[in-house]
Amino acid sequence: MNSQLACVTMLTDFGLSDETVACCKGVLLSKGLNLPIIDISHEVPPFDIISGGWILAGALPFMPLGAHLAVVDPGVGTERKIVILHVQRGDFLVGPDNGLLMEAARRLGGIKRAWSVCMERSGFKKISSTFHARDIMAPVVGDLGLGIPPSTLGEEIEEKALIDYPLAEPKQENGKITGSVAYIDAYGTVRTNILWRSLKGNVKNLKISSSWLFSIPVGRTFADVAKGDLVILEDSWGYVSIAINQGRASDLLGSKPGDPISVEFTM
Amino acid sequence: MNSQLACVTMLTDFGLSDETVACCKGVLLSKGLNLPIIDISHEVPPFDIISGGWILAGALPFMPLGAHLAVVDPGVGTERKIVILHVQRGDFLVGPDNGLLMEAARRLGGIKRAWSVCMERSGFKKISSTFHARDIMAPVVGDLGLGIPPSTLGEEIEEKALIDYPLAEPKQENGKITGSVAYIDAYGTVRTNILWRSLKGNVKNLKISSSWLFSIPVGRTFADVAKGDLVILEDSWGYVSIAINQGRASDLLGSKPGDPISVEFTM
Amino acid sequence: MNSQLACVTMLTDFGLSDETVACCKGVLLSKGLNLPIIDISHEVPPFDIISGGWILAGALPFMPLGAHLAVVDPGVGTERKIVILHVQRGDFLVGPDNGLLMEAARRLGGIKRAWSVCMERSGFKKISSTFHARDIMAPVVGDLGLGIPPSTLGEEIEEKALIDYPLAEPKQENGKITGSVAYIDAYGTVRTNILWRSLKGNVKNLKISSSWLFSIPVGRTFADVAKGDLVILEDSWGYVSIAINQGRASDLLGSKPGDPISVEFTM
Repeated sequence: MNSQLACVTMLTDFGLSDETVACCKGVLLSKGLNLPIIDISHEVPPFDIISGGWILAGALPFMPLGAHLAVVDPGVGTERKIVILHVQRGDFLVGPDNGLLMEAARRLGGIKRAWSVCMERSGFKKISSTFHARDIMAPVVGDLGLGIPPSTLGEEIEEKALIDYPLAEPKQENGKITGSVAYIDAYGTVRTNILWRSLKGNVKNLKISSSWLFSIPVGRTFADVAKGDLVILEDSWGYVSIAINQGRASDLLGSKPGDPISVEFTM
Repeated sequence: MNSQLACVTMLTDFGLSDETVACCKGVLLSKGLNLPIIDISHEVPPFDIISGGWILAGALPFMPLGAHLAVVDPGVGTERKIVILHVQRGDFLVGPDNGLLMEAARRLGGIKRAWSVCMERSGFKKISSTFHARDIMAPVVGDLGLGIPPSTLGEEIEEKALIDYPLAEPKQENGKITGSVAYIDAYGTVRTNILWRSLKGNVKNLKISSSWLFSIPVGRTFADVAKGDLVILEDSWGYVSIAINQGRASDLLGSKPGDPISVEFTM
Repeated sequence: MNSQLACVTMLTDFGLSDETVACCKGVLLSKGLNLPIIDISHEVPPFDIISGGWILAGALPFMPLGAHLAVVDPGVGTERKIVILHVQRGDFLVGPDNGLLMEAARRLGGIKRAWSVCMERSGFKKISSTFHARDIMAPVVGDLGLGIPPSTLGEEIEEKALIDYPLAEPKQENGKITGSVAYIDAYGTVRTNILWRSLKGNVKNLKISSSWLFSIPVGRTFADVAKGDLVILEDSWGYVSIAINQGRASDLLGSKPGDPISVEFTM
């Protein structure tokens, strides 16, 4: 079932300053896992499921088939489930059931089967209250990477029982499309969940939160406008983004993940 | 002696912005080392031996047997020793003799044998004055990883000649235990060196530096208190920690590594 | 030609917060590349070719033979070339033609041959406007790592057609040498491009931007001066640097990459 897995990836909001990420990797290695471990990011803003889910979804399509561990988990230690998603492409995604994995799963073809991890079934050692990534999720990812079937690790659940990604699909009406800010990248570029190809005409105006910005130029790349100028462009994943050439659009616009954003265009 | 080493780990206060960490890894690879290299942290606060030693100690028990390079070294270029510690579990720890390695060695069963690295014996190339991690310690770790015996790299020394970890063991008196802040984690949680299981009753009050905090609730996890509230809980390594649910306890309390901390409990 | 490549390295200004670095690694793994991937730095100050080029040059001599991907690319999406440099030591360097690779190439013995990557020849999939590291450069590095000859990936160009590293070679006159700040390291140490061995006498005074600093002590290591004091010393790569023992010289001096710096010495 997973004999073709070629990597393990990790995404967390743990930061890189302490030993938490390394502990998870130590657990994977201690299981005898012999796959490259790729860090997607460990600097997801703390507890930010929207950003974490969007980054994960941007990365996984470029990865080879893998077992993917994603942890942004404000509910750690509460009754929220820990889930294993097997997606159409063949990957396994492991993380808390809070929507974090769902956008990535969608981009990998959608969910084929899903399991809720059973503490009883999986033979875990001592489980702490606040570090399930190390004590439950990393062991599960290690087992999946070693070819252990998910049915021995959890109880199968229906897709509709899973909590969805927090951002709603963008809505289209006459000459306007309204979506959300999905992520602020390292350059301060505002990335949205509005597909570039859904803009059916010439972009005219932009509404960010409650303010309108008029006549922002459309560019193909940052350098299409003068240094310091705003530009709206297709990001590297096919979505609408707003940037400042060699500056930080998010600072100017005061944008944060989840904020509504509208684009008006002339047909 | 070390045919079972399964990884090399690195912990430093070098940060990730420049080429220093990569240079050490380049030295390891150039030696022909063929083990996974796991980064524990490179964002130890500069020169902070307390934090670095605590993070190292939190990570190593979860790693497979390895050769571990740890460098927080304010005395680089002075007469301080560079040491190799062989611990009961079978790992090798390499770093400056300033206490950094000692708490980790203790948690891996204690020190079996120790050596002070000899510049003469080890056949080093040009040694810089300020980058012994690259010029001395990484080559030593690489040699250990390749199975070269430590006795060919240094001179055996007695354990009691080693400088100890800076934090004293916590002290217990009637219904009160006094220890130290060991580390501020990425979430601002204050981690202490007081073992949770040493609290022999119901936690009542907390003294941080010279201020008393009364009746902080005890939780099993962050989410056991309202968002923004303080909670005292067992951290994921079995020690007392003080957190704010979705906030930064260290900012509120003004705590830093080395600060005294007392817990009162009713028996 | 490249059967001896032992690693792939990456240097970028992408930061570690989003999925960009991971996407490049995913592309490398998806090609079937089976070499260790070493991160040199992903925290080069955004768009800072001077710093990025200097860090790269500091790292590569310590790496085993490799294919090296370096991306600080303010001109992404414009007409700037993407180049492959084959250096005397045997490595391949891949990145934008903006000077970033040139100091490193010089330290690896100089350029043997160079190619400009051809989009047509290389069989790329969809190429975004703003993420050539993922869509062009990582695939090229992957191909080189797999032993595909560079002549199938680009068109050979002459070395003199390449854009040079932005910093001029230091200039020497009677008892004075004038160079540039090349990099501010993680400790705030000001690293210059002035070779230590070019100081032909006792260092006396230092001119940083337009201010003179008189009689800064020369040290062998940071700890040769009192905590908080300035010291001029040879850095770990053989260049002049200015540091504060356990402090940040760059903050005190207001130095930034590219700033002129002069050292007066008595013969």
